[in-house]
Amino acid sequence: MSEPTPLSLRDLQALIHKMYGAKDQARGVEGTFMWLMEEVGELSAALREDNHQALELEFADVLAWLATIANVSGVDLESAIRKKYGSGCPGCGKFLCQCDDRLKP
Amino acid sequence: MSEPTPLSLRDLQALIHKMYGAKDQARGVEGTFMWLMEEVGELSAALREDNHQALELEFADVLAWLATIANVSGVDLESAIRKKYGSGCPGCGKFLCQCDDRLKP
Repeated sequence: MSEPTPLSLRDLQALIHKMYGAKDQARGVEGTFMWLMEEVGELSAALREDNHQALELEFADVLAWLATIANVSGVDLESAIRKKYGSGCPGCGKFLCQCDDRLKP
Repeated sequence: MSEPTPLSLRDLQALIHKMYGAKDQARGVEGTFMWLMEEVGELSAALREDNHQALELEFADVLAWLATIANVSGVDLESAIRKKYGSGCPGCGKFLCQCDDRLKP
């Protein structure tokens, strides 16, 4: 059996667009941000519990709502990541970061 | 010229792990969550401005810190997304969602 194709950031944005694009666009950035915040709160709670399956679902929700806001505001997440992290740590420029923590450029 | 390989969720988690894995693990979930919150605040501010390039960078940061917490807590984001959204909307089970908004299952 062959491995399934890895899920790319563009696949994720396209999946969310296909499922929810019209209503996401109608809701707009502000309302969508409030949904993201609700899910971030649920992620915070799940991180304090010992239930891996529930934790996975909360990560999925936060990521889905982040992809949604990116869709609504016209941002391509892959392009964003490549610009910011494609050359290594933005602080020190290395792929094994040598900043004190994760400093900003 | 061929297109670059799409950036997968696993590539993203591996990139973050390679750059920052040791210090992320040492910082732990709680401290990492605070970094995520700082970046979410910056994303919120950028969503209100009209600067696409700055907005892209804030999306990259939020996504990077989300991937970081997933790394620290042992969650594979691709697997999480497939479990929650791989069969369509968790509310109505369709790839063109027919819920009132985006209801929860």
